[in-house]
Amino acid sequence: MASEHDGKAGHALTHVDADGVRMVDVGDKPATTRTAVASGRVRMSAHAVEILRSGPGPKGDVFTTAQVAGIQAAKHTWEIVPMAHPVALSHAAVRLELGDDGARIEATCSTTGPTGVEMEALTAVSAAALCVYDMMKAVDRGMVIEGVRLERKEGGRSGVWVRPAGAP
Amino acid sequence: MASEHDGKAGHALTHVDADGVRMVDVGDKPATTRTAVASGRVRMSAHAVEILRSGPGPKGDVFTTAQVAGIQAAKHTWEIVPMAHPVALSHAAVRLELGDDGARIEATCSTTGPTGVEMEALTAVSAAALCVYDMMKAVDRGMVIEGVRLERKEGGRSGVWVRPAGAP
Amino acid sequence: MASEHDGKAGHALTHVDADGVRMVDVGDKPATTRTAVASGRVRMSAHAVEILRSGPGPKGDVFTTAQVAGIQAAKHTWEIVPMAHPVALSHAAVRLELGDDGARIEATCSTTGPTGVEMEALTAVSAAALCVYDMMKAVDRGMVIEGVRLERKEGGRSGVWVRPAGAP
Amino acid sequence: MASEHDGKAGHALTHVDADGVRMVDVGDKPATTRTAVASGRVRMSAHAVEILRSGPGPKGDVFTTAQVAGIQAAKHTWEIVPMAHPVALSHAAVRLELGDDGARIEATCSTTGPTGVEMEALTAVSAAALCVYDMMKAVDRGMVIEGVRLERKEGGRSGVWVRPAGAP
Amino acid sequence: MASEHDGKAGHALTHVDADGVRMVDVGDKPATTRTAVASGRVRMSAHAVEILRSGPGPKGDVFTTAQVAGIQAAKHTWEIVPMAHPVALSHAAVRLELGDDGARIEATCSTTGPTGVEMEALTAVSAAALCVYDMMKAVDRGMVIEGVRLERKEGGRSGVWVRPAGAP
Amino acid sequence: MASEHDGKAGHALTHVDADGVRMVDVGDKPATTRTAVASGRVRMSAHAVEILRSGPGPKGDVFTTAQVAGIQAAKHTWEIVPMAHPVALSHAAVRLELGDDGARIEATCSTTGPTGVEMEALTAVSAAALCVYDMMKAVDRGMVIEGVRLERKEGGRSGVWVRPAGAP
Repeated sequence: MASEHDGKAGHALTHVDADGVRMVDVGDKPATTRTAVASGRVRMSAHAVEILRSGPGPKGDVFTTAQVAGIQAAKHTWEIVPMAHPVALSHAAVRLELGDDGARIEATCSTTGPTGVEMEALTAVSAAALCVYDMMKAVDRGMVIEGVRLERKEGGRSGVWVRPAGAP
Repeated sequence: MASEHDGKAGHALTHVDADGVRMVDVGDKPATTRTAVASGRVRMSAHAVEILRSGPGPKGDVFTTAQVAGIQAAKHTWEIVPMAHPVALSHAAVRLELGDDGARIEATCSTTGPTGVEMEALTAVSAAALCVYDMMKAVDRGMVIEGVRLERKEGGRSGVWVRPAGAP
Repeated sequence: MASEHDGKAGHALTHVDADGVRMVDVGDKPATTRTAVASGRVRMSAHAVEILRSGPGPKGDVFTTAQVAGIQAAKHTWEIVPMAHPVALSHAAVRLELGDDGARIEATCSTTGPTGVEMEALTAVSAAALCVYDMMKAVDRGMVIEGVRLERKEGGRSGVWVRPAGAP
Repeated sequence: MASEHDGKAGHALTHVDADGVRMVDVGDKPATTRTAVASGRVRMSAHAVEILRSGPGPKGDVFTTAQVAGIQAAKHTWEIVPMAHPVALSHAAVRLELGDDGARIEATCSTTGPTGVEMEALTAVSAAALCVYDMMKAVDRGMVIEGVRLERKEGGRSGVWVRPAGAP
Repeated sequence: MASEHDGKAGHALTHVDADGVRMVDVGDKPATTRTAVASGRVRMSAHAVEILRSGPGPKGDVFTTAQVAGIQAAKHTWEIVPMAHPVALSHAAVRLELGDDGARIEATCSTTGPTGVEMEALTAVSAAALCVYDMMKAVDRGMVIEGVRLERKEGGRSGVWVRPAGAP
Repeated sequence: MASEHDGKAGHALTHVDADGVRMVDVGDKPATTRTAVASGRVRMSAHAVEILRSGPGPKGDVFTTAQVAGIQAAKHTWEIVPMAHPVALSHAAVRLELGDDGARIEATCSTTGPTGVEMEALTAVSAAALCVYDMMKAVDRGMVIEGVRLERKEGGRSGVWVRPAGAP
């Protein structure tokens, strides 16, 4: 199989080598406390925002369901993302806020272990966004999930990473 | 519990009523052929694009893994999205294309049944995007998943829906 | 293996025969509309009831999360109950009511298919009850899940079954 | 969202705060050995008991399948109970005994980690009970799952808890 | 991406085309009754066979657990085999027989739908074999899973296929 | 239930005792680094081999998909094998090589924990083999999965085990 991957020695992809794809070996990495924060948005019509705003019932129901969706998805990250390690999450939380053009979602995940939890936080945001889309789609099929991204991570060999100000 | 949801009768949320949240009853909807197409992008640095472009190996490995991730997630939609119905998918495909600012993802899902497959197509795009992020994150932690949205749906009572030209 | 099961021919266990256990063959049963209703209770201390009663927040959060737990578990019944068939649920709903001695839970599930959905309704009640226990256990570890039972089923060869009045 | 949860600061619900629901943060809790024992009953008709009693075959098949169901469900607790942490179980066992009015179920789960395994033991009992119901329902649809409760827990900050004698 | 797959038009791989891998579209295939039978063996030492033979307890426990493992895995085939369609199994059964050199496993799966159930039967055999290995590995780590193969299939466009006599 | 298991005290089955089956208690075993290597083969017709050999596309797509299938299944071992413990895999890799009579598969899994990962490696091989079968079955329905076996294990109380040379 080597011929398919000529010249790959020089690239920096940790999951890909001359034998194809693999789960990265983290056996030598120490177990440290790690946290990641990710965010995203569900952009929706003014009409959809209005319905969510109209009272505690709809917003509470949709946002609580989306919180559960995000937390559950964070625990399922190893299943949704093929090369992700199983992670013993010590904490997961998803916050939703309603703004004029839709919902903003932020997820925080933590673990004590050899791997980071960036993928858990990003997966939680994605699932919460999909849940909001699902529950609001009868009102607005044109909603768009935007800006799903890592905001901050701490712990592990690479230390703290914070999204540069002004970065998209 | 009714007091929490006063006035909700007038809203259009199919998953929410005076008793809280529920899976919508589709028992009366006929089984018809339904298809949905969704798309999204993973915006990445020029350096990350360059690594993917540098040969068939990395791109083939990352994109094939992302295809598998998307197809598997489409089948798991009922688990990831809490109010989604279990769906017997008759077809699922995920395509990835590399452009100058990252990867574009398109997913197509079909079924013959009483419910649409919009959520399956959107979930496939999200999971494929998360997989690309995971496999490229050692190169570029700042990648952003953008524009996850429904492009087109066919079948069912509401017929064909196509994203309006010029819509975001 | 027959010797282990001597005399079993006379019993009425549909999942057990001379070869051991199996998933019952429903290939010859017609696809009809089927509904099942199950109920159960989480008996808790007056203090725990008081906390749930103290405002829309706690009760809304706990009960909405339990609804999601029940609906998700209904979809996972084939995984939780080993001999259960995979079922394409057309509807699932879970209602919770707070009484003086705890929470009463009722789940309704429907499908159009060859098998009933009793197990789906009972599993939904069980999971919603476990979720309530989990979220309230810091307040009252002595809670008891009681009376998880089928209330009513419709559809299929055996027609309507309603729990006899006065039955426990 | 704060307005929905006014005054909640005073309640004792660990999974609920002003932002809604969350997975409790156990990052600061030490990893200790923890064990939990739960029990429950499936009350059934004398006829159903008789069939189970009639020989080693039926009872062995039903009870062994229920043991597997319980052990598997214990491992799935984080999926069935939305706010439960993923737990690396070091042990799980489910015992079933046949009495005059049905089956008694007892589950024991252990782990070394930062969270208790009460939910794992209770989920194992519930799933084993659902499995017994499923395999016996052709004989007795009126069976009732009763008394699913924690008997004892050890380990962790709160130490040993034993169900008070005489408590229901 | 076409350049990676030049000349593939001529091959017969249904899951692979110029865009990579996909779940085959079965939307045009009629729903018919389909059955598949697969078999396999776990070859083990004489000592391991002797332990299984020594009484109804061990063999009953191991073989019943393996039956449950096989039936559960058949239902999970769409998750284990990436390009497999979700299938509504109408029947699944796994038989195990003890011979002089180990256990022989046979699985039968059926559905009414647009796709065959060969993968379900093969997956059931594989999981039952893995379960036997797991439960006997303290006695014999050198066991080998052999001859996992399709024996027969019926239904669908291609009709009946029976393994040729004398084929390996 | 003791009567069913008379005389079992003398056998060596770790998952079976007088109460039936159970997940072995590993609470007292120290967390050490453990690795296991397993292998297997998919024997196929010369025609099927030729199609895989005909270019990088088909082989790359099928083998990459099979790698993903194997890695994902390794993470799902606790779900596929009923008595297996949940394991936090630190590494998983699956290699496939094409020979004259089919594909050879080798899987390596590692963890730091109280239990070995033999079952994870064997499950990865089995799932990768099933995936190859699935993607090639339109060409050759007679393929056979052969020789799924443990090659080597390291770590834990029992130390290094290597398959004896000449063993089947």
